[in-house]
Amino acid sequence: MDRVYNFSAGPGALPTEVLEKVRDNLLSYEGLGMSFMELERSSPEFSAIVHEAEDALRRLMNIPSNYKVLFMQGGATLQYSAVPMNLLSAQKRADYIITGQSSKHAYSEAKKYGDIAIAASSGGALPAFSAVPVTSRSDFRPDADYVHICFSDQVYGTKFHYIPDTGNIPLVADMSSCILSEPIDVTRFGVIYASAQQNIGPAGLTVVIVRGDLLGNARPDTPSLMNYKLMYESSSMYNTPPIFAIYTAKLVFERIAELGGLDEMKRRTEKKASLLYDFIDKQPYYTATADSRCRSMTNVVFTTGDGELDRRFIAEAKDRGLVNLAGDKTIGGMRASMYNSVSYQAVQKLVEFMNEFAMNNPKVQT
Amino acid sequence: MDRVYNFSAGPGALPTEVLEKVRDNLLSYEGLGMSFMELERSSPEFSAIVHEAEDALRRLMNIPSNYKVLFMQGGATLQYSAVPMNLLSAQKRADYIITGQSSKHAYSEAKKYGDIAIAASSGGALPAFSAVPVTSRSDFRPDADYVHICFSDQVYGTKFHYIPDTGNIPLVADMSSCILSEPIDVTRFGVIYASAQQNIGPAGLTVVIVRGDLLGNARPDTPSLMNYKLMYESSSMYNTPPIFAIYTAKLVFERIAELGGLDEMKRRTEKKASLLYDFIDKQPYYTATADSRCRSMTNVVFTTGDGELDRRFIAEAKDRGLVNLAGDKTIGGMRASMYNSVSYQAVQKLVEFMNEFAMNNPKVQT
Repeated sequence: MDRVYNFSAGPGALPTEVLEKVRDNLLSYEGLGMSFMELERSSPEFSAIVHEAEDALRRLMNIPSNYKVLFMQGGATLQYSAVPMNLLSAQKRADYIITGQSSKHAYSEAKKYGDIAIAASSGGALPAFSAVPVTSRSDFRPDADYVHICFSDQVYGTKFHYIPDTGNIPLVADMSSCILSEPIDVTRFGVIYASAQQNIGPAGLTVVIVRGDLLGNARPDTPSLMNYKLMYESSSMYNTPPIFAIYTAKLVFERIAELGGLDEMKRRTEKKASLLYDFIDKQPYYTATADSRCRSMTNVVFTTGDGELDRRFIAEAKDRGLVNLAGDKTIGGMRASMYNSVSYQAVQKLVEFMNEFAMNNPKVQT
Repeated sequence: MDRVYNFSAGPGALPTEVLEKVRDNLLSYEGLGMSFMELERSSPEFSAIVHEAEDALRRLMNIPSNYKVLFMQGGATLQYSAVPMNLLSAQKRADYIITGQSSKHAYSEAKKYGDIAIAASSGGALPAFSAVPVTSRSDFRPDADYVHICFSDQVYGTKFHYIPDTGNIPLVADMSSCILSEPIDVTRFGVIYASAQQNIGPAGLTVVIVRGDLLGNARPDTPSLMNYKLMYESSSMYNTPPIFAIYTAKLVFERIAELGGLDEMKRRTEKKASLLYDFIDKQPYYTATADSRCRSMTNVVFTTGDGELDRRFIAEAKDRGLVNLAGDKTIGGMRASMYNSVSYQAVQKLVEFMNEFAMNNPKVQT
């Protein structure tokens, strides 16, 4: 079966080997005569999948035992509400760093629940959100309950090149589009969360990693299914969890471990990103829009500078089996998302095509 | 591949034909070279799946155009919060009918958001929750924003044998364990919701059918992803929806239509339920625990009256390929869930086994 080179920003490509294993267990899971999706929730096989997925992620990310791992639903979007509902204390104060649409969205949602401030923003950069603001401890209110960042921005193709120093204030990070692309020092964060459909698995699952001492402060009107403490106490089985997505994620975690873990993912991610950025930097036809100090390694955003050429590029690339290269509709242009399942070969093919397209479509001098 | 007879209460059995189609599209969806799970959210193929699933459900359930169909996440449990958050008005008053654990849970959750009353309960029946209370319009507060019921109860194996008359007050029904087992007059309800993992598809999806005039009253602090109006305005794509579950549900809806729609599902469901209940009623060894006027057609709860025999029954049945027959841990005994994907033949095999087990395991006279 011919698989295309899929540069989708989300849902992203999944490892072919994982999809094959899912396929082989779809009608009969490990010889039980029923799918893993048809296991009764109270069965030992069902909870084994959930526990094994957690254990595999803990090993992969080296998550300390005082951090809880929760499998939730609703994507990053529901976490935009769950974070303030769970973490705001009596004074209800939190600080947000704005680096694009996702962080703006997280900020607007949080404002429903407290006194939320913008500690820093790259909205004033030129072009807007092409960089990530540099912050220091003094940018944050000392009595803030937490500081929130989107660790990388999918639309603008930026990423924090440093971990903000927030002192004793817990740092909360949406890592949806960069999780599992490199090792992360979990202890620098109060909460890390990520929707699955970039580097973890299928849409419909959210991974939340939360420091144990932050549990138990939820607003009384927090929906039970969004309450970190209840989710922890029920081992993420407060109700029937999305077992298909959890099973697939478990296979992804195990696959990454087989390949060499997050050090190896980092090596591969940087190799792919360097190939593409180096090519872009060495020629005048394409431009990468993100500030070179803040470039995302997983979402490379670039343009010819001409909307008509960009559209032609995307269409012709698709005909070559290089698909989902359109940029987000907010800013247009192109975006090559290179999550773990995108091969080095895919990026080589992309660069070849970019070269060829530039030669065949000279820009009109104006 | 040998598939067992799966009587799981949830996640329930899925149609083999649907699982085969999922399997065949798992690595390359309709020849596109990528899985339906790897389609970019902004692609036309992605939104086509969501729209086709909605259309198929509308046809199947004959949903009038003034009702909105939403695909959400978080199961029935998140709806226990979403319903009061979306429907309570200024006076924040709603009435609940309690018929078991699910409705108790829904009630407790709603109490976080307003003045919630128990209009009727079958908790005082003997045994508790073996029946469904009969109500009349006078049981409900005239200024209640809605009346909530669980249309069938999975634990106790009961079902409303009538639709409560609530006058002008919108009736909200959790139909998780009976949806798609028979035609329903949607116009009698303000909101119908159901988690997918019984009769719709895999866990991780919730179907919400809401009358249009009930949109737009959500509390200001309702998480956006739980806001019915925002979900409607975005065609259930406010963020990336659980596309795997939606695609599978679409195939289930189409499969049911092929088989003859909900009239045919009702005929089949009643035929299966009659076979089992008639057998139970005609012999003294097993007893069905639900009041005969309020029996669920999809969750048949029964017992030998002897915990030790019940355990032996469940274990020996499993050895025969009749699996997931244990009752909910709250009440023990046996439960045969017979959703649309459970064949008549499966129930025949079950009855055969029940007969044989009774002969081989005479009860000790006490």
